[in-house]
Amino acid sequence: MKKRVITISREFGSGGHSIGKAVAKTLGIPSYDQELLEKIAAETGFSKEFIEEAAEYSTAKNSLLFNLVMNRSLHGRMEPSPADTIYFAQTEIIKNLAEKESCLIVGRCGDYILRDKGDCLHIFIYSDMEDRAKRILERYGESEKPVQKRIADKDARRKVYYSHYTDRLWGIPQNYDLCLNSGALGEEACANIIINVFQG
Amino acid sequence: MKKRVITISREFGSGGHSIGKAVAKTLGIPSYDQELLEKIAAETGFSKEFIEEAAEYSTAKNSLLFNLVMNRSLHGRMEPSPADTIYFAQTEIIKNLAEKESCLIVGRCGDYILRDKGDCLHIFIYSDMEDRAKRILERYGESEKPVQKRIADKDARRKVYYSHYTDRLWGIPQNYDLCLNSGALGEEACANIIINVFQG
Repeated sequence: MKKRVITISREFGSGGHSIGKAVAKTLGIPSYDQELLEKIAAETGFSKEFIEEAAEYSTAKNSLLFNLVMNRSLHGRMEPSPADTIYFAQTEIIKNLAEKESCLIVGRCGDYILRDKGDCLHIFIYSDMEDRAKRILERYGESEKPVQKRIADKDARRKVYYSHYTDRLWGIPQNYDLCLNSGALGEEACANIIINVFQG
Repeated sequence: MKKRVITISREFGSGGHSIGKAVAKTLGIPSYDQELLEKIAAETGFSKEFIEEAAEYSTAKNSLLFNLVMNRSLHGRMEPSPADTIYFAQTEIIKNLAEKESCLIVGRCGDYILRDKGDCLHIFIYSDMEDRAKRILERYGESEKPVQKRIADKDARRKVYYSHYTDRLWGIPQNYDLCLNSGALGEEACANIIINVFQG
C-alpha cells in the first residue's frame, strides 16, 4: 500500500527531530513535532511545558508530580487526569492529521496511535550513547546533570510513558517498519532511506 | 567508512536467509549461512545437526541435552564444552572470512563477533507472527507442534544462546545499524535498502 504518513519515534539525542525535518522538507509534507505540542496546548488549555513534562515524567513511586498527573484516573474517579486528558487530545489530533493529509509525526506515541492505519510508515531512530551525548551537548549545551544521566533519565521517562498508554514495550523493533542507527549510518543516509521507502 | 562485510541476524521465519542470498547475489559477494555450518563441522569434527542443535538449544534448567553441551565448562573443568568448542571455532572462522574477503554472514552471532570491525554493516530482520508463520509453513510445512509454538521456541533458543556468549540482549536495535521489518516492507525492498546502504 502506498504510504501517506510517517511516524518517527526516537531516542533522546539520536537526531530524530532533524532527520524528520529533512525528510518532510524533501517530500514536501508538513512535519509535526513542536507543532503537535502547540495543537495539544490549544486543545486542552495546558501549557506546552506542562504537556512535555507530563508526557515524559518518571513513574518513580515517590514522584509526587507523577502521582498527581498520572494516577488520578487509577483511583476510580470519573474525571480523567491531566495526563489522560493530554493523551486523549493528542490521540484525536494525530488521528485527524493523518486522516486529513500526508504528513510526518514525531514522537507522542504516533506509531501506536496510528498502528492500524495501513498507509503509515513507522520509523525508530536510535544511536549509541557517545553519539547521542555529542549531539545533545552541541544542541543544548552542558547542564548540572552529566549528559549520560540526562539521556538515561529521558529514555526511562519515554519508556514509562509509552508502556503506560500502550500495551507495548518502547523501542523494540517489532513496533516499527524500520529502525535506523543514526550514529552508524549518518543523519543524511537515514533521511534518504526513509524517503526512498516512503516513495516506494 | 566503506563497508566490506554484512552480517544478518534474523528472527526465525522472517526471510533473513532469502534476503541475504538476494543481497549477496546482487553485490557479487559470497554469502555464508549453511556454508558456515559446514566450515564449523570441518573444523570441530561435530556434525552439522549437532552444531545447529547445540547452538540454539534451550537453557531450560531441566534440559539434559543443554546441561550436557553447555555446562561442562561452568563446572571448573579445564577442557571446553562441545558448545564452547563450536563457539570458539565459529568465532575464528567468521573473523577470518571477514578479514579475507568482502562477504555476507547470516546468524551465528556474527554481529557480535565482528562488533569492533568498522567496515561491517549489521542488519536485523524481523516480522510479525502472522507473516513469519506463513513463511515457515510455505518453507517447511506443518509439523506436530503448532507453528506459533515453533516460532516462540526458536526465538527463545536464539535469545538464550546469544546472551550466553555475548554481553548483549538479542534482537534489540542497539546491536545493529539497521533493523528491517520484512513483513511490512517486503523482502525485495529489504534487500534493496541493504544494497543501497552497503554501496554508500
